[in-house]
Amino acid sequence: MLGICLFGSGRMAHVYGPAIAAHPGMRLVSVFNPNLASAREAAEAYGGRAVGDIETALADPAVDAVVIATPTNTHLEYIQAAAAAGKPMLCEKPLDLDMGRVDQAIAVLKARPVPFMLAFNRRFDPTVSALRDAVRAGEVGALHTLTIINRDPIPPSVAYARTSGGYFCDSTIHDLDLARWILGEEPEDVFTSASCMVDPELGAIGDVDTAMTVMRTPAGKLCHISNSRRAVYGFDQRIEAFGSEGMLQTENVRDIQLKHSTSAYMAAQTRPRHFFLERYAEAFTRMIDAFHRMVAKGGEPPVTVEDGRRALVLALACGASMRQRKAIATGLQGAVA
Amino acid sequence: MLGICLFGSGRMAHVYGPAIAAHPGMRLVSVFNPNLASAREAAEAYGGRAVGDIETALADPAVDAVVIATPTNTHLEYIQAAAAAGKPMLCEKPLDLDMGRVDQAIAVLKARPVPFMLAFNRRFDPTVSALRDAVRAGEVGALHTLTIINRDPIPPSVAYARTSGGYFCDSTIHDLDLARWILGEEPEDVFTSASCMVDPELGAIGDVDTAMTVMRTPAGKLCHISNSRRAVYGFDQRIEAFGSEGMLQTENVRDIQLKHSTSAYMAAQTRPRHFFLERYAEAFTRMIDAFHRMVAKGGEPPVTVEDGRRALVLALACGASMRQRKAIATGLQGAVA
Amino acid sequence: MLGICLFGSGRMAHVYGPAIAAHPGMRLVSVFNPNLASAREAAEAYGGRAVGDIETALADPAVDAVVIATPTNTHLEYIQAAAAAGKPMLCEKPLDLDMGRVDQAIAVLKARPVPFMLAFNRRFDPTVSALRDAVRAGEVGALHTLTIINRDPIPPSVAYARTSGGYFCDSTIHDLDLARWILGEEPEDVFTSASCMVDPELGAIGDVDTAMTVMRTPAGKLCHISNSRRAVYGFDQRIEAFGSEGMLQTENVRDIQLKHSTSAYMAAQTRPRHFFLERYAEAFTRMIDAFHRMVAKGGEPPVTVEDGRRALVLALACGASMRQRKAIATGLQGAVA
Amino acid sequence: MLGICLFGSGRMAHVYGPAIAAHPGMRLVSVFNPNLASAREAAEAYGGRAVGDIETALADPAVDAVVIATPTNTHLEYIQAAAAAGKPMLCEKPLDLDMGRVDQAIAVLKARPVPFMLAFNRRFDPTVSALRDAVRAGEVGALHTLTIINRDPIPPSVAYARTSGGYFCDSTIHDLDLARWILGEEPEDVFTSASCMVDPELGAIGDVDTAMTVMRTPAGKLCHISNSRRAVYGFDQRIEAFGSEGMLQTENVRDIQLKHSTSAYMAAQTRPRHFFLERYAEAFTRMIDAFHRMVAKGGEPPVTVEDGRRALVLALACGASMRQRKAIATGLQGAVA
Repeated sequence: MLGICLFGSGRMAHVYGPAIAAHPGMRLVSVFNPNLASAREAAEAYGGRAVGDIETALADPAVDAVVIATPTNTHLEYIQAAAAAGKPMLCEKPLDLDMGRVDQAIAVLKARPVPFMLAFNRRFDPTVSALRDAVRAGEVGALHTLTIINRDPIPPSVAYARTSGGYFCDSTIHDLDLARWILGEEPEDVFTSASCMVDPELGAIGDVDTAMTVMRTPAGKLCHISNSRRAVYGFDQRIEAFGSEGMLQTENVRDIQLKHSTSAYMAAQTRPRHFFLERYAEAFTRMIDAFHRMVAKGGEPPVTVEDGRRALVLALACGASMRQRKAIATGLQGAVA
Repeated sequence: MLGICLFGSGRMAHVYGPAIAAHPGMRLVSVFNPNLASAREAAEAYGGRAVGDIETALADPAVDAVVIATPTNTHLEYIQAAAAAGKPMLCEKPLDLDMGRVDQAIAVLKARPVPFMLAFNRRFDPTVSALRDAVRAGEVGALHTLTIINRDPIPPSVAYARTSGGYFCDSTIHDLDLARWILGEEPEDVFTSASCMVDPELGAIGDVDTAMTVMRTPAGKLCHISNSRRAVYGFDQRIEAFGSEGMLQTENVRDIQLKHSTSAYMAAQTRPRHFFLERYAEAFTRMIDAFHRMVAKGGEPPVTVEDGRRALVLALACGASMRQRKAIATGLQGAVA
Repeated sequence: MLGICLFGSGRMAHVYGPAIAAHPGMRLVSVFNPNLASAREAAEAYGGRAVGDIETALADPAVDAVVIATPTNTHLEYIQAAAAAGKPMLCEKPLDLDMGRVDQAIAVLKARPVPFMLAFNRRFDPTVSALRDAVRAGEVGALHTLTIINRDPIPPSVAYARTSGGYFCDSTIHDLDLARWILGEEPEDVFTSASCMVDPELGAIGDVDTAMTVMRTPAGKLCHISNSRRAVYGFDQRIEAFGSEGMLQTENVRDIQLKHSTSAYMAAQTRPRHFFLERYAEAFTRMIDAFHRMVAKGGEPPVTVEDGRRALVLALACGASMRQRKAIATGLQGAVA
Repeated sequence: MLGICLFGSGRMAHVYGPAIAAHPGMRLVSVFNPNLASAREAAEAYGGRAVGDIETALADPAVDAVVIATPTNTHLEYIQAAAAAGKPMLCEKPLDLDMGRVDQAIAVLKARPVPFMLAFNRRFDPTVSALRDAVRAGEVGALHTLTIINRDPIPPSVAYARTSGGYFCDSTIHDLDLARWILGEEPEDVFTSASCMVDPELGAIGDVDTAMTVMRTPAGKLCHISNSRRAVYGFDQRIEAFGSEGMLQTENVRDIQLKHSTSAYMAAQTRPRHFFLERYAEAFTRMIDAFHRMVAKGGEPPVTVEDGRRALVLALACGASMRQRKAIATGLQGAVA
């Protein structure tokens, strides 16, 4: 039974809490938050004790590993602390919004190696991973193009957007990670065109809410990412992989399979699952399980700190390309495992 | 927290065990089976203690309610015992295969009223109940016809079939219950044509594996049920409700939403969920929750012992019709709540 | 170039007229109707001359073959005349509504053999014939069940219904013909349950508008036909063939392939093709071509007069079964080519 | 009855020939080709007489209008000739591959105005035009993004590609025209990334076969075009319009609506219609009819010579962007009718 300390008790912590509680091989030992009242609330809901300082949290011998679900700008500090304490970590994405601080985190983990896994949860979705497995198994022959559609059902608050690092670092980064993972090759350049169509207040703080990105790999594979912060018909998550021998397409997930035909229309009676918590519920469960397996049995992390860095390189290139109206060379190269 | 004693530790008990364990308002107090070793195995897996005699099981004051998941021919005896002990019950379907014994069970519950719910789980499936709610809400106008397709992925063993009461009492009975519940009216007659196309050994013991049934209600609604014991493409569970203002159709549930297009075909990359445990997983969870609500908060059972009796009337009429090659009057009448 | 005389200038004649005109190997020589004004109208639209008496029509040496698209109760008379004149015929369905007169027609054609083809047009639909070819090619393994859904978009006028021979002889007869043709075996018995849900005036003249039929073959194959005279969502024409190795299903044909997703629904933007003229447009074209091939090159008719008789046997059995509430033995036996 | 002279008797002429012959208001008066033997072949098939010199062709008073279906590099010359003769024209796309010559054609038509329509046939497809009408009617609210997938079933021969002006001027130009027409606004810049994945010989002559394009309009609308010269699963023609109130998507057209479910897959039994002749058959018919209406009744051409020029501006920008790895300003502005 793996004892877990959960860092953070905000939105994402309320995703990890139940997933840890439900895992047969894990138990929640403690919830750490300098805001002790908040920690207490989460601990009461999912188990374990509330802890207000990180030293106490990490000194507990019952804690075998930590899950970092705190605000992005605290990740580096907590990675340092957990690495110093020798605790394996699962850390929320993005690693950080600043490339310098990302490099610091990597240096910390190089100096004091502990198992470290980055929480790109969408890789663990049954449908997404089935598509990637099928691509790797050659079911589309040689991959020629990849198209990722990622549209949120509702835009974030401006307050959230302000600290999120912008649309590319907050949301497109998921698609950039999946793109590398499915393409199997680092993109050599990135072009992004974007605008603010959904919420003018997002534009007022310099952000965008509608974006199209094109990437190219050295082998000539092309990848398109289409993003919007508001699809009124629901969370739209689709991927299309096209190659020399065929095409694979994922479809949105609906919990109720009901069709209605009337004199006016023939319609699905339900929407896609609401948002990422619902859509990727199985993915969070499977990701927590992959973390458990990595800590309990050893082996390489399925998502590395380097994956986090490279996704950030691409996300920052999206922004630079949007501003400069040209393709930005990424500097990345090689195969992606 | 409702304390539950689970009667039985066979196949269905391994469905109820985890569902009870996972329910936030229930805990498994004990597992009863005269075969104590089998009870022990289930208790270790899902909690509670193993009990070998029913008196001890029912005498335990921690037991607030019982779930009867034992062989069909023991239901009457255990209903009598639990009723005598004043314990609310959730009982697996069918109630019994003999109409006389079903009437005895009803008499017992009349003499000693305790909350009693019959486990027609399919009523609790999100998709099936959404269809029924939509029909009741008038989304197809006046209902004219109802079609239920229920095809298993694999036929049962001959040993199982021999004690199951035959195809109509074992499997079609689910469809007959859904038919009454969706039609909202008792069928006045039943016609069934059937044959043995899948496994000649089922034919050798007098059973069938392929059947078509047509029922008519006094208002003129028509209902068709199509059954097969082996659909090689997977568990096929579809319903179509057709009326004056339109049609509602349910589709099979697939966990992976992946399409593959090649020079030879455009195909779904996955099968429907394997069998009833997988397909109706949410239904079992929701049914257990409905049982919890009925016991904890009172109110009418969503599926009554009378529902069990009437489904059996129809299932027996299927058999009689098949043998006599004519429509069999059911003797049932009135609205179905 | 095959010279055709079209018998009749009513509704069906306006289907055959353009199809003959468009066929590269046929030309419309004349249109025959005792009502010469009506014949003239059709001739002006599709070519040829109008003729008011049948002797003149058949005496014309330019007429190589005739297409009989007159009211059902005139078929026998015109078949006799055309046979006497040695003209190959394509005759609308049903052959007649009276079994005695059908037998007379058969006797006529036996005494004076000329190529004769019955116009069960649905056999020539690309989708329906693809399904039948696939069944015959073993793509579902051994066929176990067949389900045919045939629902009209709008009910007929009472005036039309009064002379049509009733729902089974007018509409279900198409499904009965397809059933025989796809099952490959004559049904041994027929059970039909029906009611009047759409138009009470149809009920007032003793007809029905909603029906379910079940047939069984000696080999144990089961067939279900579901009929309604009004599907508000459009002409609903679907077939499902289920067997030991899989299932084939046809879908409705839509001319515009557009999906609309909004906050309220995800809907197809168009209805199925309106009614039989639109839905089976390609079928009429292909049927006329098959008739041309039969006359021009010889060979067996793809739909025989005997097919017409047997479909009527089944349609009459539907009515008898509905009245007697039991399965009616058909007396038919053997394979269907 | 409009008398037509068809210029050309090659591949496209064999599309126009039957469409003209089948139109109730048009007849083919003559087929012009300096290669008289080729003209003769087409004339025999579709009607009219063969003519080997353009003066004779245009001097014929029976010729009311001409259809120019000759090689691209001859369009300018024939437009000049037909304009001088005052004959209305339907001219195949692209207008020309050279912007200077396109401007010359425009000058010719300005100096000697005759009704002129450019043959962007895809605008006339029932499904494509239904999508565009729905977008214009506000069914997706304000349009935010547009995605066009255009993948051929088989790559062209290298010989054909060599004279076609390259992938962007030959094929993407259709998508660029549809993009303008659906966006309702001129793109302000174009970015294209492309590669040669299908046929290295196309790469050897400096062409590409796989391309992704992103365009942005002044209002912030984004448009993505995805092209491939070989989709092994068939001609893939899909459009997705996404906006503030929803999404519209077109689907590929299949002539046979048959699904096959087996133990291995659930598959559509047929491919999309083979290539542009089959897929856009109704579009050619409707385009010819629109040309007929324009000539017979007057009114603005539904596709203008200026539409041809602007599509070429965009196609050339695709090439420039691909070479320069940056977004190319188009210089176009304003609304698109």
